Amino acid sequence: MSQQAVNGVSCRGKVLTVENMNPNVKRVEYAVRGPIVQRAVQIEKELREGVKKPFTEVIKANIGDAQAMGQRPITFFRQVLVLCSYPELLEDNKFPEDAKKRARRILDACGGHSIGAYSASQGIECIRQDVARYIERRDGGIPSNPDNIYLSTGASDAIVTILKLLVCGEGRDRTGVMISIPQYPLYSAALADLAAVQINYYLDEDNCWSLNVAELKRALNEAKQHCKPRVLCIINPGNPTGQVQSRQCIEDVIQFAKEEHLFLMADEVYQDNVYAEGCKFHSFKKVLFEMGPEYSSTVEMASFHSTSKCYMGECGFRGGYMEVINMDPEVKAQLTKLVSVRLCPPVPGQALLDLVVNPPQPDEPSYTLFTKERTAVLATLAEKARLTEEIFNEVPGITCNPVQGAMYTFPRITLPQKAIDKAKAEGKVPDMFYCMKLLEEEGICLVPGSGFGQKDGTFHFRMTILPPTEKLKVVLQKIRDFHLRFTNEFS
Amino acid sequence: MSQQAVNGVSCRGKVLTVENMNPNVKRVEYAVRGPIVQRAVQIEKELREGVKKPFTEVIKANIGDAQAMGQRPITFFRQVLVLCSYPELLEDNKFPEDAKKRARRILDACGGHSIGAYSASQGIECIRQDVARYIERRDGGIPSNPDNIYLSTGASDAIVTILKLLVCGEGRDRTGVMISIPQYPLYSAALADLAAVQINYYLDEDNCWSLNVAELKRALNEAKQHCKPRVLCIINPGNPTGQVQSRQCIEDVIQFAKEEHLFLMADEVYQDNVYAEGCKFHSFKKVLFEMGPEYSSTVEMASFHSTSKCYMGECGFRGGYMEVINMDPEVKAQLTKLVSVRLCPPVPGQALLDLVVNPPQPDEPSYTLFTKERTAVLATLAEKARLTEEIFNEVPGITCNPVQGAMYTFPRITLPQKAIDKAKAEGKVPDMFYCMKLLEEEGICLVPGSGFGQKDGTFHFRMTILPPTEKLKVVLQKIRDFHLRFTNEFS
Ligand SMILES: Cc1ncc(COP(=O)(O)O)c(C=O)c1O
Ligand SMILES: Cc1ncc(COP(=O)(O)O)c(C=O)c1O
Repeated sequence: MSQQAVNGVSCRGKVLTVENMNPNVKRVEYAVRGPIVQRAVQIEKELREGVKKPFTEVIKANIGDAQAMGQRPITFFRQVLVLCSYPELLEDNKFPEDAKKRARRILDACGGHSIGAYSASQGIECIRQDVARYIERRDGGIPSNPDNIYLSTGASDAIVTILKLLVCGEGRDRTGVMISIPQYPLYSAALADLAAVQINYYLDEDNCWSLNVAELKRALNEAKQHCKPRVLCIINPGNPTGQVQSRQCIEDVIQFAKEEHLFLMADEVYQDNVYAEGCKFHSFKKVLFEMGPEYSSTVEMASFHSTSKCYMGECGFRGGYMEVINMDPEVKAQLTKLVSVRLCPPVPGQALLDLVVNPPQPDEPSYTLFTKERTAVLATLAEKARLTEEIFNEVPGITCNPVQGAMYTFPRITLPQKAIDKAKAEGKVPDMFYCMKLLEEEGICLVPGSGFGQKDGTFHFRMTILPPTEKLKVVLQKIRDFHLRFTNEFS
Repeated sequence: MSQQAVNGVSCRGKVLTVENMNPNVKRVEYAVRGPIVQRAVQIEKELREGVKKPFTEVIKANIGDAQAMGQRPITFFRQVLVLCSYPELLEDNKFPEDAKKRARRILDACGGHSIGAYSASQGIECIRQDVARYIERRDGGIPSNPDNIYLSTGASDAIVTILKLLVCGEGRDRTGVMISIPQYPLYSAALADLAAVQINYYLDEDNCWSLNVAELKRALNEAKQHCKPRVLCIINPGNPTGQVQSRQCIEDVIQFAKEEHLFLMADEVYQDNVYAEGCKFHSFKKVLFEMGPEYSSTVEMASFHSTSKCYMGECGFRGGYMEVINMDPEVKAQLTKLVSVRLCPPVPGQALLDLVVNPPQPDEPSYTLFTKERTAVLATLAEKARLTEEIFNEVPGITCNPVQGAMYTFPRITLPQKAIDKAKAEGKVPDMFYCMKLLEEEGICLVPGSGFGQKDGTFHFRMTILPPTEKLKVVLQKIRDFHLRFTNEFS
């Protein structure tokens, strides 16, 4: 008898199957890189292989990835990174003195003067100091303590880490986390993974996707029936909805968090991406401190930033930080221990972050070019935000709030009943059906609104405004044509 | 009555406290960056501030961080990274043609031809292809499929991800994971975080820290009483123990895994770090396939590699990959989805990994320098491995197995009963007491054996062999003197 038959191994099947794997992982969803994107990659392959399509390229407007859409990196940032990677070039007079100064300072703070060494788990100390000074400048002098700064592998990493600290309890005592709907799906994915309870509060589409406290209260009170709400997550400027919160709204949210004893998570990765007249970025930290010591010394908060967005768009480097405020010192020690298990965030990303928070100053040689590049990116984004709103709102069946900030539009689309029925017959969510058809017919890759959450019976898609202006015009045109055709086809 | 008193907020204390935080996080421990290291950082600060100490610098031999200890990066690798970061330099004739060729290929595979774009979540496709070809060369032609390669944020990230897929069940059905004792504490930390059951199997110190299957069986059978063992983790070459497993041992382990229906995790980040005569690195994959289709088509496995170790020691970049073998396709789809939530591993780390798996070839201009640098690093490590064993074994009360591979020695130390009593009186683990005293008196930072696990009643420390040869000699000398003094003091 064979060994195999004796052990019965052959009948046992796999050790790890989709039936017996971690059920929390199964519940995770992440639409930004979901089936539409997988199909888009496939279509790109088919195009390369010469398969005929009604278009010659796939335009990926599904993800906030500026450089993938052709945006050029900030020269100064890349110069410093080069000098950090290959210090021999510090002797090369091709590189400006301020870039060399920054590189030397970063290298001096690295183990063995090399970005190839692990850093402290919380991040390189002098970079945390620079971050703290940046926050102080941004917030008009409100103090920031470098001990409260944790560098991270993109904001994603920091967000998941804070959620992990907060989630506990079983059954009705399980931690509930309030997130906006529509949301950035990192949040729902992390909550599924942690088996936390997701508490949805709806943004008000009729009021430019604003947040109102009555809705927070409704959501919280309902949730209290079945879980222990502990955390309130805010994204400002908003992804996918592009709204910028007013100072008043932020104050109301903070007051609500205090009253309801909630830990605040403020995702502020788009803090430089504000375009609309009359809108301004207010950090939660600043508003918190302006509300007086009753708030600033009690409300617990973490705020998140990233090198991936704003004017730099350096997504590939995975740089980021969080600042924790009023966190219990013992919990902070636990946080420091937890991040030490993964050793440290990538050091090139830390270096890049240092440049973001400590850019060229007016008396430095790189200032002019830096300012020119930065301004150009932000001006173009503002122009594209305007253009997008304008063109979409001309299309019957598409309505679109102003893109006040961030990098996305989340227009509402009216779908004919026949299309909804057809989608259901095919076992598809209606806006997924719509986006898939758009991809197949026009080569444009968007994310269905259902990937972010939306009010029942409403349909949306998310599109980034990142394609170069001329290409964006083509995209908008194609979506318009498609939408009209689609509406006709199913009417 | 004030708002505060009405709500009772002021009496409620913090939202997040060490009492009500995630209990799994509290159970996490990570000695490599524990209290000894925190004290070392403090002492460094004191030295800078002019505090008098019996030494002038702290030597950190606690972590496998080659460049922090002065090792220079491989020139070719950094050249390509520079060209990827700042493509203007592709026109510069300071850089060799093969470096430019590699950089162009990597950039062509990046979104928008920039390493500042997010990559595919599984990693850049052409780099995964290069990894697969590297594995095929390494394993004498056994095929490797790029679809089975996942790039990662260091090996740490990939290891935690695979464990996360595998852990499920409650109570006696909870997943059990077998790890060696002594172990690399990433494993115990990840298991605590996932609330998995840690199953200890002991390496045989009397036989050069070898692994024997009888001990695996013992550990497994005991564990079956209280959990569902599903996973067997192996580190080869070993950290902290420095052993290199024989081919026969690997075959036995694989057979055991098959018989007992266990998922194998092979941590092979030190695959180039083999020094001892007669020792050779055998990958689990290769042995698995040489055992015939009965094994190679059934045993599920993941193997891990990293840019942090071997001859390159590029820890700061956090590059790595895993290869999954015989993984259920549906589970693989879940894995792909899970990694997509974090968007992608850092792209500079991916680029670096590409160079590790696709280094200069004999007909390319950088080959000579690359080979010289690589050989020099590995030859020096071999020399330091020999030196360490030799000097420690001369000290009465220290016994030390040969450092066959990896970057560490894990010598056993005999502690006088009085020292053990003193430590206990101070509430300290005896080897922690020893290492802390060594740090205070000699400025040498090691990790106590208790941080990795050891047989009850035995004591060890882990030291890296990474300090430059002359400094290593000083370190060994100082530890010898300290050990004799310590033994005297407590006799
Ligand atoms: C609102 C929001 N938060 C966090 C992130 C994560 O960004 P990263 O991990 O690249 O810093 C994103 C990325 O799109 C985002 O839109
Ligand atoms: C055995 C082992 N596995 C994994 C790692 C993680 O390395 P990294 O995450 O830097 O790739 C280490 C680091 O020391 C290690 O020793």
